[in-house]
Amino acid sequence: MNVKITGTGSYIPKSIEKNEDFHEHRFLNQDGTSIDYPNEIIVDKFKAITGIAERRYANEQLTSSDIGFLAAQKAIDDANVNPEEIDYIICAHNFGDVKANTIQSDLLPCLASRVKHSLRIKNPKCVAYDILFGCPGWLEGVIQAQAFIKAGIAKRCLVIGSETLSRVVDKHDRDSMIYSDGAGATIVEASEEEGILAHETASFTYDEAYYLFFGKSNNQELCKDTKYIKMHGRKIYEFALNNVPNAMKTCLDNSGIDISEVKKILIHQANEKMDEAIIKRFYRLYKTPVPEGIMPMSIHKLGNSSVATVPTLFDLIRKNKMKDHSIEKGDVIIFASVGAGMHINAMTYRY
Amino acid sequence: MNVKITGTGSYIPKSIEKNEDFHEHRFLNQDGTSIDYPNEIIVDKFKAITGIAERRYANEQLTSSDIGFLAAQKAIDDANVNPEEIDYIICAHNFGDVKANTIQSDLLPCLASRVKHSLRIKNPKCVAYDILFGCPGWLEGVIQAQAFIKAGIAKRCLVIGSETLSRVVDKHDRDSMIYSDGAGATIVEASEEEGILAHETASFTYDEAYYLFFGKSNNQELCKDTKYIKMHGRKIYEFALNNVPNAMKTCLDNSGIDISEVKKILIHQANEKMDEAIIKRFYRLYKTPVPEGIMPMSIHKLGNSSVATVPTLFDLIRKNKMKDHSIEKGDVIIFASVGAGMHINAMTYRY
Repeated sequence: MNVKITGTGSYIPKSIEKNEDFHEHRFLNQDGTSIDYPNEIIVDKFKAITGIAERRYANEQLTSSDIGFLAAQKAIDDANVNPEEIDYIICAHNFGDVKANTIQSDLLPCLASRVKHSLRIKNPKCVAYDILFGCPGWLEGVIQAQAFIKAGIAKRCLVIGSETLSRVVDKHDRDSMIYSDGAGATIVEASEEEGILAHETASFTYDEAYYLFFGKSNNQELCKDTKYIKMHGRKIYEFALNNVPNAMKTCLDNSGIDISEVKKILIHQANEKMDEAIIKRFYRLYKTPVPEGIMPMSIHKLGNSSVATVPTLFDLIRKNKMKDHSIEKGDVIIFASVGAGMHINAMTYRY
Repeated sequence: MNVKITGTGSYIPKSIEKNEDFHEHRFLNQDGTSIDYPNEIIVDKFKAITGIAERRYANEQLTSSDIGFLAAQKAIDDANVNPEEIDYIICAHNFGDVKANTIQSDLLPCLASRVKHSLRIKNPKCVAYDILFGCPGWLEGVIQAQAFIKAGIAKRCLVIGSETLSRVVDKHDRDSMIYSDGAGATIVEASEEEGILAHETASFTYDEAYYLFFGKSNNQELCKDTKYIKMHGRKIYEFALNNVPNAMKTCLDNSGIDISEVKKILIHQANEKMDEAIIKRFYRLYKTPVPEGIMPMSIHKLGNSSVATVPTLFDLIRKNKMKDHSIEKGDVIIFASVGAGMHINAMTYRY
């Protein structure tokens, strides 16, 4: 039995936050000291490394589950399935619903329940749960959907990645410029055609569990108990370079597909330089040059919206909204992600 | 292929909060008005309905992932498995790690990553993720573990339910007396012997999604943006009575087991009167009287610790710590749970 993605949808918030919008921020070092150079230089350096020129912030009245619902509705329409015939709704996120200008994560009920409620699905046999798995959560949800289909307990799953990272950033931390809001969704179904060819997942927690963590503001005057998304950027960079290419290689080799057949690599949009270095190392494992146009990037305009980046990128390409990038039926794609946990996953996929 | 629970463990916090400890609380109605009778009567009425005389609160220095780790270590020891040979760590909870005297849920990294880190497991192939599925989260984790084993992507899973509800209660709400802290864990493995015979899951979200929700304090003077666990108790009671017995019946009938063969029913410890009414209706569906001693209850001493109640109850019985209750090899058990979502699940199991 094969498992295929039969529909995609995404929600890209309309509100654009440009790099220039950070010029008036008060950035501080982790120890609370001032940074010796002006914000213009901080922002330019940031852009040179991450590739991010702008990012999207959800409107104040919307939460993560709201934008997850909006993406889900599009994926359902795209797949042209009856919502009442969905067996699972799997919602990946990292912080739950955080209302604008508040600091609590609202997880009760789980976001998948909220999405199902908003979709007005009545069928109680449609099981709605959330998965927390860092940025690779959406892809892991697809892998779980495949397991449920193979185990015979599902035929059709809705897998969503939705996040409003703008609500958990420390405005005094330069890394806050990385984060963005967004949602992507996919319908995953049992199929006669080839789809998922192989997958690989790994959780590195021995030394790496707290590379991304919830920590206090760089501004020591703020409440110590209020926590924000924080990262040890350099450690993550090295970790990703050392481990993501290998995971991708294991996944590709397990699929029996030759490297020359790979048409696109859709990788989590975390940091442009890091993603480029990962792809370079990946191809080096095959002693092959990196093919031009292999890695579509949305990070320049959309930033890092965690679980939403990969399904959104896939949706944009499928809908012909990514200049210079297209995929044809039969093309082999590698999906890959890395994030908090630290978790890594990859999937070889026949489009 | 069969799937069996080969080890159990639980962590019951040492600190006991007795009903008398609530005598000095200032309970208010939902609209902020005072309650017309003294706390002694409020507490007595509460006990008459829920059966709860005392509950456990985790020590201030421990979080949900800490007590989940402590339960997990016991389950690993009990099953006598090599931790490096665990394929999945699935951690069910509802609020993440909430530090004592703070209001934020810390979900970064996911709790399963933290538990794996604390267990000092090195194997990156051990996939660690969290599931949010209300109180039925632990049982749903077991159902997911079974799916992974049946799909051929796992042989051995650690499934944990851990929660510190004492950190998300509104002290001005009488319902705050229900909630407790605790953790239960199980090792779920592929087996030649019978184990899980059938399972059933349902998510009711059309009208029911917000029966349990995150809402403001009954004390209108407190910050409106600070949210607590809240419930529409009467609606939940009716919902559970109308739906849990049917789910249990579908599950039992799908297993092909006769009602007379059922030796124990381990049901989520939410409310004694509700659980008794559910069991009564369940047996009424079979036109059979409720057998004496069919339903072990831990709620009197342990309260409602959400995802932790069922695995803890199972662990206590297996370790001969529940007076008048024991299970023998070959006995048929029904596990059942209901909670925020609203989710319901059940599992017929050959011990």
